[in-house]
Amino acid sequence: MPVEPNAAVEITALSWVPDFAKGVVRDLRVRWALEEVGASYRERLFHGAEERSAEYLREQPFNQVPAYSDGEVRMFETGAIVLWIAEGSETLMPRDPQGRARAMSWTVAALNSLEPSIQQVVSLDLFHAGAPWRPGAREAAVGLARMRLNRLAQRLSGRDYLEDRFTCGDLMTSTVLRILKDTEVLADYPVLTAYRERCEARPAFGRALQAQLDAFTGEAPAGWN
Amino acid sequence: MPVEPNAAVEITALSWVPDFAKGVVRDLRVRWALEEVGASYRERLFHGAEERSAEYLREQPFNQVPAYSDGEVRMFETGAIVLWIAEGSETLMPRDPQGRARAMSWTVAALNSLEPSIQQVVSLDLFHAGAPWRPGAREAAVGLARMRLNRLAQRLSGRDYLEDRFTCGDLMTSTVLRILKDTEVLADYPVLTAYRERCEARPAFGRALQAQLDAFTGEAPAGWN
Repeated sequence: MPVEPNAAVEITALSWVPDFAKGVVRDLRVRWALEEVGASYRERLFHGAEERSAEYLREQPFNQVPAYSDGEVRMFETGAIVLWIAEGSETLMPRDPQGRARAMSWTVAALNSLEPSIQQVVSLDLFHAGAPWRPGAREAAVGLARMRLNRLAQRLSGRDYLEDRFTCGDLMTSTVLRILKDTEVLADYPVLTAYRERCEARPAFGRALQAQLDAFTGEAPAGWN
Repeated sequence: MPVEPNAAVEITALSWVPDFAKGVVRDLRVRWALEEVGASYRERLFHGAEERSAEYLREQPFNQVPAYSDGEVRMFETGAIVLWIAEGSETLMPRDPQGRARAMSWTVAALNSLEPSIQQVVSLDLFHAGAPWRPGAREAAVGLARMRLNRLAQRLSGRDYLEDRFTCGDLMTSTVLRILKDTEVLADYPVLTAYRERCEARPAFGRALQAQLDAFTGEAPAGWN
């Protein structure tokens, strides 16, 4: 679905981020979920290098993007928003209790068992590249990430998706793997690379990614290289 | 509710962990949620220093505890299990859509916006105490944790709970703060310490904590100091 100025659903996102963040800002996950369920949405954009208002903190207490509203509810935190959207459509979440429980399990596992060590690796690369303590810290983070990636690869061996069909659990897990795209970490895991590519080949992902990239219309701040 | 051998709900937990982990293993969160909604449950215990079966991996693909079953569904990942339990009772999750959406938002925020940097600080203290790179890595982790704790303290200033009543969002957030109990990090945040104590004063928390401690009946492995 195109981004539509009059849509009932609104998400917040950014109009400028450094190049390394383009295509991985967390609103990508919400855009993808909305595309999968066929919901159009409008954007409220903030410049990534500017302060947001104190009023925004009531809506998004950690001052992040995205926040979400749909006329019925206002909410925050990507994982919660994706679960909320998923509940509204069998496309992302099976209707039977067991299927639903597993989709929820994988979604939260992506956010809490998989993403922390993966984000740590990438944060060290991006924000502490020259620090003398970085190599040791990175080795430890990669070790923990590999422990979890080994389990994930074991699960996905011989499967297209985490369960017998694509769910919000795959949406979340594949976008967590995407964080590693500029590192060497996934090179040892062809099964995970194939899985990520399989998920990202979905037309809904392509539209979501393009919509995030299209929103980057802001100017780099003065002094930014 | 007491732990009952014939209860319909089963959780997996550990019969032995090192002292530093006693009272903070993640099944505490699920025990607390079950206590809040008045559900009895039985335990399936594993020794924390022993391999779990390959069969358990089908149930809990990351080989962690807790896993959960209730006769209707089998699922894994603490945050997902707590959301599942919360959905079944107004005690943990308001019935109105907006109240429900905010409870979900806070629950997932605790797991993905708050816990990663907090767990990182404590993991450095516990598992890398002597590493030459630890001080630098810890300073960076504490800095990120404080950024998020500042926002949380701002939200809780003048409030008893994150919203107008206790929800699963408070259950999750207070157990994330609990991870910091043996560090200096919360010393600057009396509002967060008071909040954690307010949540932990709930009788359901006390019963959950005692139940986790009572389950530690296993022997330390040979050679463990």
